Amino acid sequence: MHKIIINTKSKIDIVNITKDIEGIVKKEDVKSGIVTVFSPHTTSGIIINENADSDVKTDLKHIFEKLVPFSDNYLHMEGNSQAHSLSSLVSPSISIIIEDNKLMFGTWQDVYFIDFDGPRHNREIWVQVISK
Amino acid sequence: MHKIIINTKSKIDIVNITKDIEGIVKKEDVKSGIVTVFSPHTTSGIIINENADSDVKTDLKHIFEKLVPFSDNYLHMEGNSQAHSLSSLVSPSISIIIEDNKLMFGTWQDVYFIDFDGPRHNREIWVQVISK
Amino acid sequence: MHKIIINTKSKIDIVNITKDIEGIVKKEDVKSGIVTVFSPHTTSGIIINENADSDVKTDLKHIFEKLVPFSDNYLHMEGNSQAHSLSSLVSPSISIIIEDNKLMFGTWQDVYFIDFDGPRHNREIWVQVISK
Repeated sequence: MHKIIINTKSKIDIVNITKDIEGIVKKEDVKSGIVTVFSPHTTSGIIINENADSDVKTDLKHIFEKLVPFSDNYLHMEGNSQAHSLSSLVSPSISIIIEDNKLMFGTWQDVYFIDFDGPRHNREIWVQVISK
Repeated sequence: MHKIIINTKSKIDIVNITKDIEGIVKKEDVKSGIVTVFSPHTTSGIIINENADSDVKTDLKHIFEKLVPFSDNYLHMEGNSQAHSLSSLVSPSISIIIEDNKLMFGTWQDVYFIDFDGPRHNREIWVQVISK
Repeated sequence: MHKIIINTKSKIDIVNITKDIEGIVKKEDVKSGIVTVFSPHTTSGIIINENADSDVKTDLKHIFEKLVPFSDNYLHMEGNSQAHSLSSLVSPSISIIIEDNKLMFGTWQDVYFIDFDGPRHNREIWVQVISK
């Protein structure tokens, strides 16, 4: 298993981790298989989305903020129930195909760590490469 | 890796791809493992849901359309930020179990490609079969 | 493939299945790999979230209930379109990393079966362990 460590810079932050995952896939030298990308935190997730227009990231943050209200008579004392629920909706785990030793994405896709409860130091992403 | 190519026929369209995936699993002749089903587009996803009453599909489309508003001062110029966010919420990747050379589903389950930004020609679904 | 069978006790019920999955991983004796956890029902899902403060579970139930309205002129006669859509949003399948023969979680994480259409007897969870 491999670990990527990043810092996030705002409450909801979307950080491109594609090059890190590609580096791991290259190092493992697996011709055909999958890679499972996993966030070990309960207030973040892993998403795949557009890599071209950064406005998509801004719109995603806006949409996620509105989807679940920040305050709503929640019981959890830490005040981050919005972030916990967005983490479960988005999922902390995603699997991507490897073929010909490469991470397989569509033209406009990249993989991102999304923090719903930032900014934070030392957010981890765990990566497992599985051969076919 | 295998590719399935389909056309979608409406803005939100839910297309059953179970027989295609079953055909791939049969051809690969894997006794026990998983299959990862992946959409290489940023405005679509892969879901598993009910295969019996087509009203469920109609209700799902209605619910997804309402969950994220189509217009809301989004920045992204292509006007499909709703579709991008639903793609991340639903996920473009899902893994299904293979056992005894068969795709393992509950009685009422099938696997679907869901387009949030159709109608489109040549939507692809990528499929990787992993042996246990 | 392994099966876990549980009963759920309320409409939305969140049941910790971590010890069951850990038992399966231990029995299979896989040093490094992933485990795919799959719900064969169309009105439930698998989530990973906080294991410390049970208020998080209460808040999650409240948030999911509000996210998709229970009634909204749905067509599906069984009256559980809310549960079907939450199942697709949350996903019935999740993959978790195995390393050093152990299920790898962050400090605050556990894995849960979430029923959106309980209470129900004999809800199943299917589990496939894949070696690296």
